[in-house]
Amino acid sequence: MNGAQALLHTLVGCGVNVCFANPGTSEMHFVAALDGVPDVRGVLCLFEGVATGAADGYGRMAGRPAAVLLHLGPGLANGLANLHNARRAHTPVLAVVGDHATYHKRHDAPLESDIDALASAVSGWIRRPARAADLGADAAEAVAAAMAPPGQVATLVLPADVSWSDGAAPAPPAAFRAPAPVPDEAVAGAASALRSGEPCVILLGGTGLRRGGLGAASRLASASVRVLSETFPARHERGAGIPPVNRLAYLAEFAAEQLAGSRHLILAGARAPVAFFAYPHLPSSLVPDGCTVHLLAEPGDDVPGALAAVAELAAPQAGAAPQPPGRPGMPDGDLTAESAAAVIGALLPEGAIVSDEANTSGLWLAGATAGAPPHDWLTLTGGAIGQGLPLAAGAAIACPDRSVLALEADGSAMYTISALWTHAREQLDITTVIFSNRRYAILGLELDRVGAVSSGQAARRLLDLSKPGIDFTALAAGMGVPARRTGTAAEFADALRQAFAEPGPHLIEAEVPPPF
Amino acid sequence: MNGAQALLHTLVGCGVNVCFANPGTSEMHFVAALDGVPDVRGVLCLFEGVATGAADGYGRMAGRPAAVLLHLGPGLANGLANLHNARRAHTPVLAVVGDHATYHKRHDAPLESDIDALASAVSGWIRRPARAADLGADAAEAVAAAMAPPGQVATLVLPADVSWSDGAAPAPPAAFRAPAPVPDEAVAGAASALRSGEPCVILLGGTGLRRGGLGAASRLASASVRVLSETFPARHERGAGIPPVNRLAYLAEFAAEQLAGSRHLILAGARAPVAFFAYPHLPSSLVPDGCTVHLLAEPGDDVPGALAAVAELAAPQAGAAPQPPGRPGMPDGDLTAESAAAVIGALLPEGAIVSDEANTSGLWLAGATAGAPPHDWLTLTGGAIGQGLPLAAGAAIACPDRSVLALEADGSAMYTISALWTHAREQLDITTVIFSNRRYAILGLELDRVGAVSSGQAARRLLDLSKPGIDFTALAAGMGVPARRTGTAAEFADALRQAFAEPGPHLIEAEVPPPF
Repeated sequence: MNGAQALLHTLVGCGVNVCFANPGTSEMHFVAALDGVPDVRGVLCLFEGVATGAADGYGRMAGRPAAVLLHLGPGLANGLANLHNARRAHTPVLAVVGDHATYHKRHDAPLESDIDALASAVSGWIRRPARAADLGADAAEAVAAAMAPPGQVATLVLPADVSWSDGAAPAPPAAFRAPAPVPDEAVAGAASALRSGEPCVILLGGTGLRRGGLGAASRLASASVRVLSETFPARHERGAGIPPVNRLAYLAEFAAEQLAGSRHLILAGARAPVAFFAYPHLPSSLVPDGCTVHLLAEPGDDVPGALAAVAELAAPQAGAAPQPPGRPGMPDGDLTAESAAAVIGALLPEGAIVSDEANTSGLWLAGATAGAPPHDWLTLTGGAIGQGLPLAAGAAIACPDRSVLALEADGSAMYTISALWTHAREQLDITTVIFSNRRYAILGLELDRVGAVSSGQAARRLLDLSKPGIDFTALAAGMGVPARRTGTAAEFADALRQAFAEPGPHLIEAEVPPPF
Repeated sequence: MNGAQALLHTLVGCGVNVCFANPGTSEMHFVAALDGVPDVRGVLCLFEGVATGAADGYGRMAGRPAAVLLHLGPGLANGLANLHNARRAHTPVLAVVGDHATYHKRHDAPLESDIDALASAVSGWIRRPARAADLGADAAEAVAAAMAPPGQVATLVLPADVSWSDGAAPAPPAAFRAPAPVPDEAVAGAASALRSGEPCVILLGGTGLRRGGLGAASRLASASVRVLSETFPARHERGAGIPPVNRLAYLAEFAAEQLAGSRHLILAGARAPVAFFAYPHLPSSLVPDGCTVHLLAEPGDDVPGALAAVAELAAPQAGAAPQPPGRPGMPDGDLTAESAAAVIGALLPEGAIVSDEANTSGLWLAGATAGAPPHDWLTLTGGAIGQGLPLAAGAAIACPDRSVLALEADGSAMYTISALWTHAREQLDITTVIFSNRRYAILGLELDRVGAVSSGQAARRLLDLSKPGIDFTALAAGMGVPARRTGTAAEFADALRQAFAEPGPHLIEAEVPPPF
């Protein structure tokens, strides 16, 4: 058995049975080995950023890693931005980076580069097996490393000769630890702060944003205790019947308002809040002066368990406060980001998975969908745009019985637009909505917010996507995804209904004005 | 004057007046400063890999760097693959990577990552100015570093507060050295080998592949001396009136045949040849046993001068042997990679710049265009596919009076397809030919060559682009580039004629069968 075969058999034993792939010559033995291991589904992506983003979406929903197969340093480089998002999301991902044969590297062939330096920027674990005989055990350890709470990117650098050499054997799964219980002192400290009557904020993140954590946290809410979510959750369970939570705002000024006056900030799976960017005259830390930060649970801890324990101490009688069901009325007139959100709230199917990279066009989405049937909401965790369409692909493969809705800003969509081809190739049940406002609207806002003085057209032209306008229905059709353009709320509703009703991928171009 | 303004004024003084940009919030002061520095042309790209590939194309043709503006670590990551190609091409490129404000970095905001680790993989020079007052001088040094022979990627990491703080001033250009003359001993050693009568190969690379170097080298060719080009030149001047040179083959077996029996290998701007990939049972080095390698000139040396000096010693009486003019006859029948090459050879305009990422469909191009009017040929130097369309954009901006022809494999095109939007936005005179054979043909070949045994459909499916087929005319139209699909040689010729005759961008989808 060669290394590649042992690797694949080991992965199957470890529960890894999807491989998003953009292979090259150095990965051909891995590719060939797929023929003998039908339990691993190979999913071709036309660009590595699609493959890594799909692995992120898969891992967020499946709770276990997909493999993602990349071709040497440049292939890893193309996949880094979405691995950066996966790192911030704490998603378990197994990156397999093919490399030149061990003896070939010193010749500095054209594709040679410093893979380890590149991998270090996103990976919590990196290994380079030196012999085929080691590969099985290294692969099992890689999966365990990816699964180490709260989850991380584990990178296995696979030299071509280690892949093609005989003498390998599959290894059994390696053990990995479960999320750690939180020490009693942390629970007691949080409970004490919450019972103090002083203004408190509980900031939820990670697994705290699943149904169990939200239920426990909602028991703690009171006149003096507010519960908020981290700004960009990896996966947030929400909708009717699930306790709701507002997100900490993206704009530092608004976030500061949300936190103003609080004397205790209790972190439950979230990090202490910081401004997304630095702005002249605004602080980086969003923790108010005089506010004590209590670390209840790290992202890798048992966050729901910690919240439940605090609730037993601080609010033993309180019940959870689930979101009542409710949908917006169907809007009329021209399509806007706001009316599109209402349509989405009115039609979102039960069990939907929303991949949200709508950016400025998404301002109204949270409110409009709050009372929709239960669903999962996945956000842009690391700020590296181009996540949404790939993430949707991975989520759809992880959850083939659920409807996936990708809400996508036009500018961001163009980074990884070839994801649509994978949507079509795999006939994934994904509805993509492109909010086409023909500009980088967020940058128009930020240009002013950072105090940059733009006095002419050169700067504005770099934020403009209107010349030429992009016809996303043509792009979708060119990659095998049926598409419609919509300019009124009624057209958008009709298109969305049809897309949800039919299996397979669809794209709707939503022509909306910029929100500001 | 703030840092960004001083930076831009410094760049203009150093001859840098194009900036390919994909900016974000941390670069807004740089963007705003463009309004006050009209001598810098900002060119928006919808993905960083387009911006870096365009900077490579610009630098190869202009002989001086363009700036490329990238957004933090993820933006740099997206641009790395084409910076890798630029590194292998020895192209002068100035990468400006916006970063968080200096004081913001320790807060580990979502977009924070290890920019230095990423930059180290492609950059010959990296600096991170700490104060606005340093920025002018650092920028001037960055340009000089990019220009240091043979040219390299210089990376300036620009913290947002260094960009927005006052107290900066433009700096004058920094000195950089010219290509070094080659020592007399190296010239004498090469001349002695060439006069020995033993079989010799002169391997040309870098500036040795411009008209002057080719002329000198051709004087040295004889019954015992063959002249070859490195496999993937950054820029090769060729066509009628210029001495021709064959390229060392990509396939190691064929390259070994070309070099078999040679006793002396003289490197003139090229590196000692190595196999592109490792293959079981094939050596990595392509230098034959018993062959002595003579280093005449490094890529950063005065390669044409060294060749001329050798010619004066070894072949003082010999003249250059220019390529006679000649074009293929216009072919008939179904379009194939071979007939498409003949059409291109028949129609290639004088002074054309060819961005060649045709891969397996390009096998017949060199022969078919050998006697066409003089032109430049730019190849995929680093093996990181997705170079061709961006490179064409940069070349067109560097040389607005010349016709640019991008010859592009379908698989490779999809990595950076949004380059077409920049072609349209800037109305660049680029004709893109997509060789649509609907598979990763090179990988089908390599799967067999590496000895991988594929027994089923799972592996072959990862090399297949036919389900769904990609409609490149729809993709082009969606981004504002007029496009036609062609299935016969006559249709292809008609489309190519029209595209060359009309200004602005065009795309021709050439439906061809795979060559094997």
